[in-house]
Amino acid sequence: METHAINFRDKFARFSEHWSPKIVAQMNDYHFKLVKFKGEFVWHSHHDTDEVFIVIDGAMTIHFRDQDVVVRSGEMLVVPKGVEHKTSAEAECKALLVELAGTINTGDVRGEKTAPADTWV
Amino acid sequence: METHAINFRDKFARFSEHWSPKIVAQMNDYHFKLVKFKGEFVWHSHHDTDEVFIVIDGAMTIHFRDQDVVVRSGEMLVVPKGVEHKTSAEAECKALLVELAGTINTGDVRGEKTAPADTWV
Repeated sequence: METHAINFRDKFARFSEHWSPKIVAQMNDYHFKLVKFKGEFVWHSHHDTDEVFIVIDGAMTIHFRDQDVVVRSGEMLVVPKGVEHKTSAEAECKALLVELAGTINTGDVRGEKTAPADTWV
Repeated sequence: METHAINFRDKFARFSEHWSPKIVAQMNDYHFKLVKFKGEFVWHSHHDTDEVFIVIDGAMTIHFRDQDVVVRSGEMLVVPKGVEHKTSAEAECKALLVELAGTINTGDVRGEKTAPADTWV
């Protein structure tokens, strides 16, 4: 078991790349991942899992086909499974994701922004 | 689907009691719950699920039989299933819990601090 709490600021200091979630904790079969967003992601969906975004620092927009939702520091949003979405951030945004272990960041799509799903930091 | 992000500060303003987690979101079969801690909880464990504590404001201590772990704002800790623990906070601490839907706050113990597991805020 962890004998120290997991400090988000310390963990964020260990990587700089955008769109590449890093696992910081596992709870049952779920991963908690830190990620830095800047710019615009790709449209995708996850057929097998809801996905939680908790913004730690900054602000991001989660785009859906029929609306945009802004998520700011101290806020969270659940993206239901199967729902197409795309994330964007004008300035760098730091967020905590919660999703099933093994979830690929680009969901059912593969492309240049597809990142490994098993990298810890 | 939610058309607005869930704002932790707004949700915390809606209740004042301690040790009584309120659900703010569901992801698959997991609940995200906000809770205010002050004072000392009871020893308990959850035989069927890990439990995540993310501190939003203040600081808390998670006591285990062989160690204490302090968790501060911007930090998280996973309590593994089956591991006895007790939470405490000298000053009021605001936290986000993640656990299986239906999880009882006092786990496999029942007492005066046992709260309903299905209250949303």
